[in-house]
Amino acid sequence: MVKLNPYFKELKREYIFPIIEQKLSELKREHPNVKVLNFGIGDIALPLAPSIAKAIVKSVEEMTTERGMRGYGPHNGYAFLREAIVKNEFSHLGFTPEEVFVSDGANSDTVNILDLFSLSSVVGITDPTYPAYLDSTILSGRKKILLFPCLPENRFAPKPPKEHCDLVYLCSPNNPTGIAMTRSELQEWIDYAINERALLLLDNAYEAFISSPEVPRSVFELPGAKECAIEFRSFSKTAGFTGLRCAYTILPKSVKAQLGRKFVSLHHYWDRRQATKFNGVPYPIQRGAEAVYTKEGREETLAQVALYLAQAKRLKEGLENRGFTCYGGVDIPFIWWKTPEGQTSWEFFDTLLKKCHLISIPGRGFGMHGEGYIRLSAFTIPDKTTLALERLNKLKIL
Amino acid sequence: MVKLNPYFKELKREYIFPIIEQKLSELKREHPNVKVLNFGIGDIALPLAPSIAKAIVKSVEEMTTERGMRGYGPHNGYAFLREAIVKNEFSHLGFTPEEVFVSDGANSDTVNILDLFSLSSVVGITDPTYPAYLDSTILSGRKKILLFPCLPENRFAPKPPKEHCDLVYLCSPNNPTGIAMTRSELQEWIDYAINERALLLLDNAYEAFISSPEVPRSVFELPGAKECAIEFRSFSKTAGFTGLRCAYTILPKSVKAQLGRKFVSLHHYWDRRQATKFNGVPYPIQRGAEAVYTKEGREETLAQVALYLAQAKRLKEGLENRGFTCYGGVDIPFIWWKTPEGQTSWEFFDTLLKKCHLISIPGRGFGMHGEGYIRLSAFTIPDKTTLALERLNKLKIL
Repeated sequence: MVKLNPYFKELKREYIFPIIEQKLSELKREHPNVKVLNFGIGDIALPLAPSIAKAIVKSVEEMTTERGMRGYGPHNGYAFLREAIVKNEFSHLGFTPEEVFVSDGANSDTVNILDLFSLSSVVGITDPTYPAYLDSTILSGRKKILLFPCLPENRFAPKPPKEHCDLVYLCSPNNPTGIAMTRSELQEWIDYAINERALLLLDNAYEAFISSPEVPRSVFELPGAKECAIEFRSFSKTAGFTGLRCAYTILPKSVKAQLGRKFVSLHHYWDRRQATKFNGVPYPIQRGAEAVYTKEGREETLAQVALYLAQAKRLKEGLENRGFTCYGGVDIPFIWWKTPEGQTSWEFFDTLLKKCHLISIPGRGFGMHGEGYIRLSAFTIPDKTTLALERLNKLKIL
Repeated sequence: MVKLNPYFKELKREYIFPIIEQKLSELKREHPNVKVLNFGIGDIALPLAPSIAKAIVKSVEEMTTERGMRGYGPHNGYAFLREAIVKNEFSHLGFTPEEVFVSDGANSDTVNILDLFSLSSVVGITDPTYPAYLDSTILSGRKKILLFPCLPENRFAPKPPKEHCDLVYLCSPNNPTGIAMTRSELQEWIDYAINERALLLLDNAYEAFISSPEVPRSVFELPGAKECAIEFRSFSKTAGFTGLRCAYTILPKSVKAQLGRKFVSLHHYWDRRQATKFNGVPYPIQRGAEAVYTKEGREETLAQVALYLAQAKRLKEGLENRGFTCYGGVDIPFIWWKTPEGQTSWEFFDTLLKKCHLISIPGRGFGMHGEGYIRLSAFTIPDKTTLALERLNKLKIL
């Protein structure tokens, strides 16, 4: 009989969403009228910006005409969008539009990039982290995986290891810990990568939220990065695209890998991989993404970003004022909340659900070093923050 | 240094699109005013149906409101679309909406499905065929690949082999040969799959064009298929979605694979794979796909399908009347044109480009058994068919 990929058995992380669903159903069965506040999933809460909607609508109407109809687009994105990205995000860094690959999500890109590398690659991953990196690495059959614990002791920004890695996943600003790496912290990783001839896979999906001056907006601001890094960005949180699906990857032509005895530019192979396995992003969605860079689009989306960051600030201060220990929330609207003494992630999740009717995410869903924390998402509207803070008052002060 | 996936070196198929581009540029340099007719790439030619555009526009406007905003959708598609698909396409076959997985393209699904299986799987692929199956199989590192030649002798519908396969890619109606497998031909493959405990990966992206009564609309009409087949469908050609990106896969819960000593339902693993590596199709695009099943949507898209099939008929008859040998064009608007005696695919491509200013696709781009043929796509409008037929008159009659 056809054999399943045996590495499915190696996926050991608890798959938390069905458990959360289950607990939520139980609560609703016992208390049918309860209004549950969802601070769990990190999803946008504000409506789509009008200028983006307008651009999408216009392009769809255009498609109903003979002149404006569009079939297959380029697998790496329309030139208008790649040019807008380079001009608006990377003008100071000297990239060409060919070094931008438009896709349907940073999630897709960060995991599909694995297709490019040898199965013998040693993969380094921070822990806790966005679960798709580890799960996809495991499913690909790669067995040499190093986990770097993110702990208060290292400011949740682990140093490069002594061991060799070929590929290193970094997510900064970090989901779930809410911490962004500073210039000097990131520079250490670049130096490591150059030394080890390794490659940094930098998930920078939350770039729009960076507020700290010591945090670079792009890894490519730092010397050496163009030889050893790939950066993943997204319109998901920047511009409310989680339901619209558009992201992009910057792969400098100067990044190389070994093929047989040759050193080749990775760029060509990612292009080939995408041309083979992906057919591009819907034309109207790309027009919507382009509109993010108009004057109105910028204003509307920056206002959303500011609003989410303000909720993170309110939530974090509210919790800290009550004596709780929280991290993050400054450069990304996630708060990494240390569970009160003696409670596991799941126990504290249950407490918040039962006492405050509030959904969070148990930290262990992001890796074993997430145990002892829960993640609160501040992608929410002010009224809900107010309500959450009221309900959180019910928690016993420590 | 980080090592590239070594199997990129095994991709031996000539990558024809850059060569076509090159030849086209040369023609335009020599004859700047020439009007080139593109019968190469199989892309839609008609504008988007108004009812589909209307549904997309409505949903985008909905997203700008507090009530109507949508963030992350289900990775496997919204229930409204999965229910519409089951009701309209498979009501007689007893599937549940859970057995439908909505995605961004049949291309993505037909290649991503490989993630589910052991690398030791023996993969059978017809030749010529849609290139992504073979390229992705090679890139995945699978080495046991059997090619089944599609030739006039076997009506371009090869019989199951004597050898064992674990996975078999079938594309019917077939791109590029233009031939669809009949009930009895397909039944032989099902019987083979049951006997060998193999799995059929059936690309049925062109289902909407099936016209021959002896060709089933779905493999699942045939006994046994629900135990050994996965079917891939698409809105791309059915409803003009090549630029909008929406497709779906039917994976019956009854399809099993071996994991260690157990036999497990594949359904759960595809769900897990998609949840890990894919974030779903844009909400407005799914609303557009849903609109395909309204009365207006049906009428508009069926009219498009009929128009394309009519162009295929005209083209094929025109060529046959002039003594050429052509196949296909009945159940899918692709014509598989045998090159005149002694000419290779590329030579005949050059003849058509130079004498008729018409772009085709050399058959060898689809595999070695495509040598000696070119593919004409009849996804075109009547005026262009007329013009093409006029220009094809310049070819010397054989």
